[in-house]
Amino acid sequence: MAAVKIAFTVKKSSRPEIPRKAIYRLSIYLRCLQRLKANGIRTVSSEALAAAVGVKSTQLRKDLTYFGQFGTRGLGYDVEQLVTLVSDVLGTTRLQPVILVGVGNLGSALLFYRGFQQEGFEIVAAFDQFPQKKQSRRFATPVLGMDQTTEIIRKHGVKMAVLTVPPEAAQAVANTLIDAGITGILNFSTITLQVPEDVMVNNVNLAIELENLSYFVQH
Amino acid sequence: MAAVKIAFTVKKSSRPEIPRKAIYRLSIYLRCLQRLKANGIRTVSSEALAAAVGVKSTQLRKDLTYFGQFGTRGLGYDVEQLVTLVSDVLGTTRLQPVILVGVGNLGSALLFYRGFQQEGFEIVAAFDQFPQKKQSRRFATPVLGMDQTTEIIRKHGVKMAVLTVPPEAAQAVANTLIDAGITGILNFSTITLQVPEDVMVNNVNLAIELENLSYFVQH
Repeated sequence: MAAVKIAFTVKKSSRPEIPRKAIYRLSIYLRCLQRLKANGIRTVSSEALAAAVGVKSTQLRKDLTYFGQFGTRGLGYDVEQLVTLVSDVLGTTRLQPVILVGVGNLGSALLFYRGFQQEGFEIVAAFDQFPQKKQSRRFATPVLGMDQTTEIIRKHGVKMAVLTVPPEAAQAVANTLIDAGITGILNFSTITLQVPEDVMVNNVNLAIELENLSYFVQH
Repeated sequence: MAAVKIAFTVKKSSRPEIPRKAIYRLSIYLRCLQRLKANGIRTVSSEALAAAVGVKSTQLRKDLTYFGQFGTRGLGYDVEQLVTLVSDVLGTTRLQPVILVGVGNLGSALLFYRGFQQEGFEIVAAFDQFPQKKQSRRFATPVLGMDQTTEIIRKHGVKMAVLTVPPEAAQAVANTLIDAGITGILNFSTITLQVPEDVMVNNVNLAIELENLSYFVQH
């Protein structure tokens, strides 16, 4: 590999196709770096950082080179600079607006969960078929009617949506959100969404994760 | 492949190594089959079932053959029988006991979420470092002290735990749970747990899923 003179150059253009797993690992590295920073640690070797997050140091170095050249040979990584750069790559240096659609059982639980905000995501609005009924629970987030999704998405420039509607409604709701400008969906419904190529769907299903464990604990 | 005469034989012994993704897909098939059953549909072809869940029919048939021979050529699958058999493979035909450890922000949200119970999992107890403080929120589930984990795990024969403790506590707590008999952990903390080979960990991190989307919506 050719030596790159300027440390911390983030390649923004002509970036190679980056494996999705590498992006997940960046998030894990970031959490670890934030803990180091909070503990007053200023530099960290790739070996130490890799060990702390449970990957091989070759993997860590490879993941970081997708985004430019980080660190100085023999000195390791500057923790604060790496936090800033990884946050920048992940787009979490500023609070990002997110909407939540479907204020049922799980949607309500997620509205009570303040962890998204702590990590740089603000749920600017929630939507439900019966907003009056759901609003009475007094969430910090306003619960609006489904007919207001497009307006709010455009007004706040929202790109990401948390989808917690019943499976039979999920595809139609996703279509509406995508038409309004949503390009990233965190899908909690148990159906496989059909979306255009430029839309990314991450599927999370807590019951299915437990069911998967259930299979393994028995066999 | 040799024809198997007896339909619906579930191979319990000498089962080949089954990809984890196939187990996830079984859960998705099950949800779809349950919807078909609820709608009074008695048989379904592999093509129709595959289309409904968004996989290729060859994939569906391959996944099911891991567990024996299902369906009759030309007649398709008997929906009710397939529901029963897939549930049996996944171990969700009876309510399974689960514990939750760490009643913070996310742990509380999950205790309010009733979806686990609907899918066959009962959170028999929750544990926290400060149980009195957390109990006051009046969850349906009792919140006990960390010193009671081993007793409860053994008493209820619990195999699965939902881990929602802070990252710095996660490994030590996991060790205690595993010593007491837990073999499946749904890990919401952002560290990679080190566990023995016979213990399965499924990692879920909602903020990381959003962060991952955040990367893609920007690039």
